[in-house]
Amino acid sequence: MENPPPHDTPEPLKERLWRIIFLSDTPAGRAFDVVLLVLISASVGVVMLESVEPLRERHQGVFRALEWVFTVLFTIEYATRVWVVRRKSRYVLSFFGVVDLLSVLPTYVALFLAGTQYLMVIRILRLLRMFRVLKMARHYGQANQLLVALRASRPKIAVFLFAVMTLVTIESTLMYLIEGEHNPGFSSIPQSIYWGIVTLTTVGYGDVAPMTVAGKVLASIIMLSGFAIIAVPTGIVTAEVIRSTKRIPMDNRRCRECGWQGHDPHANFCKHCGTRLER
Amino acid sequence: MENPPPHDTPEPLKERLWRIIFLSDTPAGRAFDVVLLVLISASVGVVMLESVEPLRERHQGVFRALEWVFTVLFTIEYATRVWVVRRKSRYVLSFFGVVDLLSVLPTYVALFLAGTQYLMVIRILRLLRMFRVLKMARHYGQANQLLVALRASRPKIAVFLFAVMTLVTIESTLMYLIEGEHNPGFSSIPQSIYWGIVTLTTVGYGDVAPMTVAGKVLASIIMLSGFAIIAVPTGIVTAEVIRSTKRIPMDNRRCRECGWQGHDPHANFCKHCGTRLER
Amino acid sequence: MENPPPHDTPEPLKERLWRIIFLSDTPAGRAFDVVLLVLISASVGVVMLESVEPLRERHQGVFRALEWVFTVLFTIEYATRVWVVRRKSRYVLSFFGVVDLLSVLPTYVALFLAGTQYLMVIRILRLLRMFRVLKMARHYGQANQLLVALRASRPKIAVFLFAVMTLVTIESTLMYLIEGEHNPGFSSIPQSIYWGIVTLTTVGYGDVAPMTVAGKVLASIIMLSGFAIIAVPTGIVTAEVIRSTKRIPMDNRRCRECGWQGHDPHANFCKHCGTRLER
Amino acid sequence: MENPPPHDTPEPLKERLWRIIFLSDTPAGRAFDVVLLVLISASVGVVMLESVEPLRERHQGVFRALEWVFTVLFTIEYATRVWVVRRKSRYVLSFFGVVDLLSVLPTYVALFLAGTQYLMVIRILRLLRMFRVLKMARHYGQANQLLVALRASRPKIAVFLFAVMTLVTIESTLMYLIEGEHNPGFSSIPQSIYWGIVTLTTVGYGDVAPMTVAGKVLASIIMLSGFAIIAVPTGIVTAEVIRSTKRIPMDNRRCRECGWQGHDPHANFCKHCGTRLER
Repeated sequence: MENPPPHDTPEPLKERLWRIIFLSDTPAGRAFDVVLLVLISASVGVVMLESVEPLRERHQGVFRALEWVFTVLFTIEYATRVWVVRRKSRYVLSFFGVVDLLSVLPTYVALFLAGTQYLMVIRILRLLRMFRVLKMARHYGQANQLLVALRASRPKIAVFLFAVMTLVTIESTLMYLIEGEHNPGFSSIPQSIYWGIVTLTTVGYGDVAPMTVAGKVLASIIMLSGFAIIAVPTGIVTAEVIRSTKRIPMDNRRCRECGWQGHDPHANFCKHCGTRLER
Repeated sequence: MENPPPHDTPEPLKERLWRIIFLSDTPAGRAFDVVLLVLISASVGVVMLESVEPLRERHQGVFRALEWVFTVLFTIEYATRVWVVRRKSRYVLSFFGVVDLLSVLPTYVALFLAGTQYLMVIRILRLLRMFRVLKMARHYGQANQLLVALRASRPKIAVFLFAVMTLVTIESTLMYLIEGEHNPGFSSIPQSIYWGIVTLTTVGYGDVAPMTVAGKVLASIIMLSGFAIIAVPTGIVTAEVIRSTKRIPMDNRRCRECGWQGHDPHANFCKHCGTRLER
Repeated sequence: MENPPPHDTPEPLKERLWRIIFLSDTPAGRAFDVVLLVLISASVGVVMLESVEPLRERHQGVFRALEWVFTVLFTIEYATRVWVVRRKSRYVLSFFGVVDLLSVLPTYVALFLAGTQYLMVIRILRLLRMFRVLKMARHYGQANQLLVALRASRPKIAVFLFAVMTLVTIESTLMYLIEGEHNPGFSSIPQSIYWGIVTLTTVGYGDVAPMTVAGKVLASIIMLSGFAIIAVPTGIVTAEVIRSTKRIPMDNRRCRECGWQGHDPHANFCKHCGTRLER
Repeated sequence: MENPPPHDTPEPLKERLWRIIFLSDTPAGRAFDVVLLVLISASVGVVMLESVEPLRERHQGVFRALEWVFTVLFTIEYATRVWVVRRKSRYVLSFFGVVDLLSVLPTYVALFLAGTQYLMVIRILRLLRMFRVLKMARHYGQANQLLVALRASRPKIAVFLFAVMTLVTIESTLMYLIEGEHNPGFSSIPQSIYWGIVTLTTVGYGDVAPMTVAGKVLASIIMLSGFAIIAVPTGIVTAEVIRSTKRIPMDNRRCRECGWQGHDPHANFCKHCGTRLER
């Protein structure tokens, strides 16, 4: 994603660090990835446990200490990334650059502001950093195939969701007319739409359910019609997965420069950094 | 959908209006579409919010005013459509013609009649007007492919639903025999059928659930059998989606007369208005 | 299904009746089918409404009268069928012969026995008679294709259900160990299995739900693993539907003798009565 | 799975027993399989019924007696298996060897230890022994095809589950922020994640459901997005099932040594014991 330093510069440390942090083609790079994965998992675990009130009250000191350990480590990592990367602004403004910053900022901001509970939760976004590490892992080709299939189904799924939403709205309005007066769960059209979505997706919490005879009849019709509706996205995605499996033979070539894997079999150049790929 | 005025008539305004309102191949036509989409969305939003009682009571004046603004605008649009269209009766009686009328009528009727709450809800049908605008949009080919797949699966889905309904009725009658005396949710066969549909579609509200041991055993068998049943419509639709993706190369030809897009590649004439299509 | 009377016998009435009742290739035959469908639907509707207690108490006389009308009509029909059919024992012992008998018997038995509420419910099986009428209808080819696909998936679905049941049992036993003491819904292994089936089929009534932290963690793992499991029967059936669509071109030939439709395209003889099919 | 005694050894009894117990190609072998299936089913049924408290209290003696009958029979079986098998340590340490031992051990341990309720439940693992018997049955080819399809989808499903878990965590954290204060079901992030999994898998117990307006809006978006997500594993598995049906012609060759069936058509050697397969 970031341009590598030219290979002839006499900056061994910077380049070595860059290779360790951004690639995973050296033992040190792979070790760094593993350590980072463990740190991210642990820090996300801490954010989760901290949200459990009894735990938060009892172990407040431990949580705070751990949080600072993670924050300091991630800050050092972020600073190093900015330092070793060549096009700094490009990294800082990239998706992962922003995520990297967001995963340390809340702790510092909480020093100066009170009532930053909401801010702290931003740290859960550290989860997204896992994808950077994992994108170089061996399952990448698989994920890529899935993504291609999902991307190809997007326009159809969008059309489908729009049609479903219209259907849900009209059906829910009918339910509002029928049930509205007797059932607090259908007291307004938006309420009924919430019920309609819960029903058509077959989640069916049961917090809202029809109570009148007419309502139950209509709900039954809606559910049966939903049967065929559920089948549609499955059909779309399945067709695309089948197609993508045919189209994309797994290509294991890894870019020498940026470590990106999952190139098109016909590609001659890395689609990320433009380096010529070996045949 | 409606026949255009002949291209040699000296009625520039009427024809220009027709092109703006019914087609979207000019900048003005596209702007009209966008404005219409915004107006429809806003008016549907108002209908929804008005159904929320606390909001209705507090902002009654605002809702009434907005409603009249939308109604007047849509009335002007409807009148213009009738004026510029050549075969007036054909437009007025067409599906979208009726929807266009229904989306303004309730407000006028409410002037003369009291207790027209139900009438007002008809305005939610304005949603359907969105499809007219969107059918000329870029996703149209996708929607068409989906529709072809769905239409092709219709007879199979119908047969399937009939068989499922028979199965549900017989299974639900058994549940009524087993649970009926102990469980108010199975107090009659229609009640049990409601439960059967909720269960087989995997919605599972939980407002009705078996309580006796025998009932739970039978319900378990019904659910497991439902496993394979759910798979059937998915299989049908998926097979059709796969087939339709193979069959229909996207055909971008647009009818010069009615603007319909999505013709069969082998079609020589527009399937809507019968105009000869360009090759 | 039954052998027709030889075409040279001088029994015009019997043969004409046979053709009307068992086939639907004459106007009279089709009219008979429609009347029968209406009668069956009405009689099933009466059984259903009769199960609703308030209705049963108020309109007991009406229900009883209607029931006798249907019973007498179906008895006449049954007697005629037995009379006109050639191989009587074969019809009487056939699936539909038994269903025909079961749909009139309960009303007569109720004359002599008290407390026959359960018996009366047998009348719901009249629903099955609809399939006889419909099997000659135009959707038959579609239903046949579905049946072929379902039959082909049966061994795989059976293997799958067995594996799922083993998995459910082991997972439910674990839940029983974890939740058993705190949650009446997991008070025994069979109870837990009920929960396991409700969960894995994604019905999720919510009458039984995990309450301890460990139970929720295990339940989450079970649900996520269920994700992939649900996909399996869909995959099986879809594969078969796709295959069956390729294999069976719709064949509209109808047997001159028994009216059976949906023959294999390569078939030379009716697979039901053995009559030579026209090419 | 275990190496057979050499075919020229003069140990008729040991070899005959081996053939009966491990293979099912003789009448005696098939009879043994059936008896074993019945015993396993019965013993698992007893474990289940014993977990029902009222039954346990009333029929404690019966359960204990039956349990000892099964344990003694299975112990004899286990001892015989160890005796007749050639490479004893390999059998004892194999998956089924461990399961065989675990299915008798708890009853003996319960003699010496008190409070072994948890131990007794291990006996439910006897269920797994059924697979050994069934793997030689006629549905084996089908199961093998399913397994091949599932194994081929594993990397994709793993990638998918990881992505879904990240999505669920972030969405659930948002719900925790929105609902947390008003709704005990969202009182912590792990609690919200439980809700997220229940929702995205469309199980929808309803024990936790959004209560605020904002929560319902976000939940609706999550459910609709889940629509497409559910389709993904189905798509993956379906694609693999279709592929596996094409790829694997059923191969009925059975290994002469270990009885394993379901070899690859091109295989020259048994993939389990390495014996050369007959062409």
